[in-house]
Amino acid sequence: MTLNPPSLLIYEPLVRTALIEDIGRAGDITTDAIVPADQRNSLALRVRQPGVIAGLEMARCAFQLVSPMVRMEIERPDGSTVSTGDTIATINGPARALLTGERTALNLLCHLSGVATATASLVSAVKGTRAQIVCTRKTTPGLRALEKYAVRAGGGSNHRFGLDDAVLIKDNHIALAGGVRAAIERAKAHVGHLVKIEVEVDTLAQLEEALALGVDAVLLDNMMVEDLKQAVSIARGKAITEASGRITIATAPAIAATGVDLISAGWITHSSAALDIGLDSV
Amino acid sequence: MTLNPPSLLIYEPLVRTALIEDIGRAGDITTDAIVPADQRNSLALRVRQPGVIAGLEMARCAFQLVSPMVRMEIERPDGSTVSTGDTIATINGPARALLTGERTALNLLCHLSGVATATASLVSAVKGTRAQIVCTRKTTPGLRALEKYAVRAGGGSNHRFGLDDAVLIKDNHIALAGGVRAAIERAKAHVGHLVKIEVEVDTLAQLEEALALGVDAVLLDNMMVEDLKQAVSIARGKAITEASGRITIATAPAIAATGVDLISAGWITHSSAALDIGLDSV
Amino acid sequence: MTLNPPSLLIYEPLVRTALIEDIGRAGDITTDAIVPADQRNSLALRVRQPGVIAGLEMARCAFQLVSPMVRMEIERPDGSTVSTGDTIATINGPARALLTGERTALNLLCHLSGVATATASLVSAVKGTRAQIVCTRKTTPGLRALEKYAVRAGGGSNHRFGLDDAVLIKDNHIALAGGVRAAIERAKAHVGHLVKIEVEVDTLAQLEEALALGVDAVLLDNMMVEDLKQAVSIARGKAITEASGRITIATAPAIAATGVDLISAGWITHSSAALDIGLDSV
Amino acid sequence: MTLNPPSLLIYEPLVRTALIEDIGRAGDITTDAIVPADQRNSLALRVRQPGVIAGLEMARCAFQLVSPMVRMEIERPDGSTVSTGDTIATINGPARALLTGERTALNLLCHLSGVATATASLVSAVKGTRAQIVCTRKTTPGLRALEKYAVRAGGGSNHRFGLDDAVLIKDNHIALAGGVRAAIERAKAHVGHLVKIEVEVDTLAQLEEALALGVDAVLLDNMMVEDLKQAVSIARGKAITEASGRITIATAPAIAATGVDLISAGWITHSSAALDIGLDSV
Amino acid sequence: MTLNPPSLLIYEPLVRTALIEDIGRAGDITTDAIVPADQRNSLALRVRQPGVIAGLEMARCAFQLVSPMVRMEIERPDGSTVSTGDTIATINGPARALLTGERTALNLLCHLSGVATATASLVSAVKGTRAQIVCTRKTTPGLRALEKYAVRAGGGSNHRFGLDDAVLIKDNHIALAGGVRAAIERAKAHVGHLVKIEVEVDTLAQLEEALALGVDAVLLDNMMVEDLKQAVSIARGKAITEASGRITIATAPAIAATGVDLISAGWITHSSAALDIGLDSV
Amino acid sequence: MTLNPPSLLIYEPLVRTALIEDIGRAGDITTDAIVPADQRNSLALRVRQPGVIAGLEMARCAFQLVSPMVRMEIERPDGSTVSTGDTIATINGPARALLTGERTALNLLCHLSGVATATASLVSAVKGTRAQIVCTRKTTPGLRALEKYAVRAGGGSNHRFGLDDAVLIKDNHIALAGGVRAAIERAKAHVGHLVKIEVEVDTLAQLEEALALGVDAVLLDNMMVEDLKQAVSIARGKAITEASGRITIATAPAIAATGVDLISAGWITHSSAALDIGLDSV
Repeated sequence: MTLNPPSLLIYEPLVRTALIEDIGRAGDITTDAIVPADQRNSLALRVRQPGVIAGLEMARCAFQLVSPMVRMEIERPDGSTVSTGDTIATINGPARALLTGERTALNLLCHLSGVATATASLVSAVKGTRAQIVCTRKTTPGLRALEKYAVRAGGGSNHRFGLDDAVLIKDNHIALAGGVRAAIERAKAHVGHLVKIEVEVDTLAQLEEALALGVDAVLLDNMMVEDLKQAVSIARGKAITEASGRITIATAPAIAATGVDLISAGWITHSSAALDIGLDSV
Repeated sequence: MTLNPPSLLIYEPLVRTALIEDIGRAGDITTDAIVPADQRNSLALRVRQPGVIAGLEMARCAFQLVSPMVRMEIERPDGSTVSTGDTIATINGPARALLTGERTALNLLCHLSGVATATASLVSAVKGTRAQIVCTRKTTPGLRALEKYAVRAGGGSNHRFGLDDAVLIKDNHIALAGGVRAAIERAKAHVGHLVKIEVEVDTLAQLEEALALGVDAVLLDNMMVEDLKQAVSIARGKAITEASGRITIATAPAIAATGVDLISAGWITHSSAALDIGLDSV
Repeated sequence: MTLNPPSLLIYEPLVRTALIEDIGRAGDITTDAIVPADQRNSLALRVRQPGVIAGLEMARCAFQLVSPMVRMEIERPDGSTVSTGDTIATINGPARALLTGERTALNLLCHLSGVATATASLVSAVKGTRAQIVCTRKTTPGLRALEKYAVRAGGGSNHRFGLDDAVLIKDNHIALAGGVRAAIERAKAHVGHLVKIEVEVDTLAQLEEALALGVDAVLLDNMMVEDLKQAVSIARGKAITEASGRITIATAPAIAATGVDLISAGWITHSSAALDIGLDSV
Repeated sequence: MTLNPPSLLIYEPLVRTALIEDIGRAGDITTDAIVPADQRNSLALRVRQPGVIAGLEMARCAFQLVSPMVRMEIERPDGSTVSTGDTIATINGPARALLTGERTALNLLCHLSGVATATASLVSAVKGTRAQIVCTRKTTPGLRALEKYAVRAGGGSNHRFGLDDAVLIKDNHIALAGGVRAAIERAKAHVGHLVKIEVEVDTLAQLEEALALGVDAVLLDNMMVEDLKQAVSIARGKAITEASGRITIATAPAIAATGVDLISAGWITHSSAALDIGLDSV
Repeated sequence: MTLNPPSLLIYEPLVRTALIEDIGRAGDITTDAIVPADQRNSLALRVRQPGVIAGLEMARCAFQLVSPMVRMEIERPDGSTVSTGDTIATINGPARALLTGERTALNLLCHLSGVATATASLVSAVKGTRAQIVCTRKTTPGLRALEKYAVRAGGGSNHRFGLDDAVLIKDNHIALAGGVRAAIERAKAHVGHLVKIEVEVDTLAQLEEALALGVDAVLLDNMMVEDLKQAVSIARGKAITEASGRITIATAPAIAATGVDLISAGWITHSSAALDIGLDSV
Repeated sequence: MTLNPPSLLIYEPLVRTALIEDIGRAGDITTDAIVPADQRNSLALRVRQPGVIAGLEMARCAFQLVSPMVRMEIERPDGSTVSTGDTIATINGPARALLTGERTALNLLCHLSGVATATASLVSAVKGTRAQIVCTRKTTPGLRALEKYAVRAGGGSNHRFGLDDAVLIKDNHIALAGGVRAAIERAKAHVGHLVKIEVEVDTLAQLEEALALGVDAVLLDNMMVEDLKQAVSIARGKAITEASGRITIATAPAIAATGVDLISAGWITHSSAALDIGLDSV
């Protein structure tokens, strides 16, 4: 999967909001008091723990919204695997702008690199299998497009971006519809020809029913490894298989070994730790 | 510290943005296809691991923006310590609205409860000392006011909300000013009478210099416990003392035992795991 | 396909913008001068030519943004086929609000009903065949979700909502990629598992190439009916077939008779005439 | 009337909204997958049917919001009458930006050129008379300033831009006021000295009453040609005369021949067909 | 002139912005700390100096955006002339909401009442003459529609609301056009039939030239009273006359006595003092 | 206090809103009709009465939002004391842009310079004493950050920017809390370590009580000069003292002579007259 950052049209409003929530009404009173307006500075974005980088363009955007005179030179682009001490970019410009923009830029960069790093760790755990790591809609409010991008930077693939770009029939839908068949039939009658349908199944019986009706993908939720293996074998050639539930670095290899196509994990977006990146003197 | 949620004026735009990023242009096509428009439902917000709750009002806001007919009854308000299986609220209303709003509501609630839970764990680690746990500006872009609130829900206290409500002189400012004295003097000349000044010091010499000039608080960054103890004793009665750097559940007790007033930790906002909360049948 | 209007979250900003562009800074100076503030009125939305209705909820939203005291009772809901003189809804409330909101409400309702009516005419032209009428991305700027809804109200189905919810490889992409194969392979490597891929083909050779690589749908652009028939037969069971180019009420039946799955037409959204609907005394 | 496009301040938000509704959350996944980031391209905006151009600056804005590196050279500016095959502008820049911006740019340009072309056809039908073609407030929600501009590009003139820049007393107002006199008197007492007053009259008696009270213009709605002729002769030198209702290319010449000053038609904005313009290889 | 407040659609965004700039990120920390959440209160809006009231609906909006539970009962509506000590409205609701909304509500109410009071003082100074007091475009950024309304509340009339609702040819335009004639002719050729034209003239010669070309109004800027008298006599029956420049309570009577139709003054909007209104215990 | 203008991020939205409220939907129809698009012009911003300048960057922003081709050269920067006739800046660019942007730019500049001038007059009245002049939250809705900046330009200092950056306990809070002690104790328990607490006291008894509990500042509201002198002497070394109420140029010297630290006045922001500045030929 090629790694393209989202369009500035998508993330610039968030970066602007983040800057405004930091500078408030009175601005960076510490920097304005202490640092002369004409002082310039050069700083390096340096990682303090190993990981995978994502978010450099968003960091650049933050600095340049503070001052268009800031320049950033990227040395290790998004998607790079880095080691402690690596310089990933250098920035220079008015010293005030670098200090005022620093926290917002780092908050974006460290968070997104954290998501990329968590994803990469899971990708690495299933290396050698056919399983792809995918994210979920369990993302931070307002940051979905960016976190989905960070997942790609970490080597993962993206599940739905929202409720509207694919059908995912869950247990609640099945219960309210009165069964797998009714749910799938209603969905097929409702959506356009470019919309795929995935259905969550909890048992092999449900799986057979769903496959018989024809769906694009099946979500095998919280199945034991043995059941998963059987489900994958039943679905082979008929639908994409996705395993979810209790996915960790420890459990992922066995799950991947079942031959499942996709392994989805919410925690890579909602519970990953920020990657420690600092802004140091060059 | 009393626990008041932020004004709806502050968080409603974020909740709206989060809903729109989930429903996209075509809306919740799965639910619209499968669930009849007039079906009603009652569901329970139930926790799946122990923790501290924060974000119920934001979750309510999410559901009610989808449909003003949704009602939520809170059983365990924000700030409550909960156990696995506890029901924290029940919601009822149009079944479609519950399903469409579910993910956005949970993304807010689980994230903020995660911050509250992380904070509470650190608060608990320093129990019995005078030390208060405080957050930093290392927050998720767009969510600062909410994460600061979650820190309060977890028993912590809030540091600056932004660059404009207090002066915090860091090493970079000192370097650019040419020393602690110049930095503090410039800050004092610049700010209004209701703005406090805190200065980061790395050595006891810097500490003495800062205290001599008169500051409200000193940030003792990454000091060894022995140095910290000495610093606290020097600063006693002259300035509030804050310890930061490498704060963990394991290191916090010893740091707190130095008598420091505040312990600040970025990870409670930027690296806490979401608390697992689900929306189940009643 | 069930007919659900989009969420208010999606269209309320447009309705608000439309009202503000009509009332400007000084408001409805004619009505404010002439009509007493406490006068109430009842009016009927009546169609002046046969057609299909779409947009009643958006019209209601317009009136209620002017005054929450306006009530609308719908007699012929969206999707209804109506005749000249039919009353589709009655509204009552403050006379000023009815007059001030009238133009914005009608501009929405007449435009969307025009799209629904145009769609229905094309749907009717292919009745008895398997062909579904679908819209395109040739929509009015800012109104996409509403026009897509109007297409559904007219009995049509929706193609992509935007550039991000499905892959549609056009001639330009093929040219820049250096061929059908390269384009399809790059797309497959790039997108997630819930994204469908459609490719535009101009010749039967290109069609065979695309089908061999495996795609979800093929867009048969501007093909002669004979070629179309052959293409449909080649693609049967392998991909959904979509015909486009020079689709009119006159040409549609023959195109539909080829057995094609979908017929797409841009003019149902970009060139349909508004349906004449007025606001009359009851 | 000189032809000045509206200020970018007015239309940039609409263009931005239109782009965002097209690129969604995930962006142009087809182009991002297939076209290399550093590929450049040159394309020509070419008309596929005769007409009048409007909207080139809005199209330029769309491309440049996608990438500031796109350059557009205009060959046939807005207001030009063009023939099939004419190149109206060439654009060059990053190939991705051209493809991603194409649909939004064309949606704006084809729609506005359609309005200009419809206007021009009506202008042409009344050539040689004193009658000017004017638009109404029956415009597409969100596009009023742009459609008013397109009317000017087609040789027409603009009626009110909204409810607030002139008084237009309609039959509903007269009914609620209890007569023409009361309506006009209230309006005169209400508005500032730079606001003109126009009143809709259905009969010659109402016309005389309005003229006696002094109004700036009279709207002669749906009058037979003979009555119109008489009305024009009565109003000459006392008020501007405007004819409206059932205006078509066929009926316009006879109406214009009555000597009326203005002929207004809603369909030039609400029911004109888009002009077919494509983006071709140079 | 009837006194209608602008639509909520127009001023609600300003009130919201004003509240957010007051409550910031952390909210009303004083009130939240001190006042119990369930405490209710009743307060009276009481004037502390004589004047004319404007802005009660905007004040109500401010309180109700803080809490929809606040109720306001108006005793002296906008446009009322009040004396020191008069209660103009009582409000009751949650004590916190009253305290948090107080400053924003009063900032709006005191400012607008100040504009109304200044206007009324000038209206009073020209009582008994035909002269109407009108405002200008010298308004506070973001508050134009509200200040224009306050002028009406004070008994004044409104000039243009913006650059787009009437033509006002000033000395700069005349200079750039190369003379009065060219300027007027270009304007007439440019604008629609419902747009009035006013031209600023500095000399009687310019006045004659403008009148000969036919304009709706003439702005007689900074003329001596004698010249003004002559100008009014020349223009009578041909154009509305407006005097401007150095208008004060002291100079207005003599200027009005010249028979001029309108007297415009910028200071009633840009330099009026706020009316002192407080929120007291009932 | 160093004079730094707020970040463009803070004031650009206001300037944009102000421009849009002036140009409306149809734009500057006078200028567009009369002034050729390619004409250029140079003009000077010249003061017509003595005062202190504030707002040049906001004026520049206004012109450049109309056209990025406008250039402004500042001769007398914000904070300068100027005399009648002084040129404070020259601007050149497209003649249309200068005329279209003029009023918005001047409205900002004249208003903010008015605030700066009023502040400077009060600062001058207390020269030679220790008293600093501070503003209040009685600012124009939407302009707080700019008016606070103008106060600094006039030599004043800033009080709170909003309800959230410091605690200010007023008489209403004390009444609702049931006394000074309860109010102060609740506030101390509620706020973070970088938030200062000021309390309004009306009597010396309240003052003693507040000082005993420890507060950062005391607001001595409407005290007679003798009481004020005593209060200042009691508070010396224990809290910052602020006098407020009935502050005028005439009363300020005696109040300042009491030794009070701060004198706050609402009228410098809510009731200052605009400074007369015009845009003249160079």
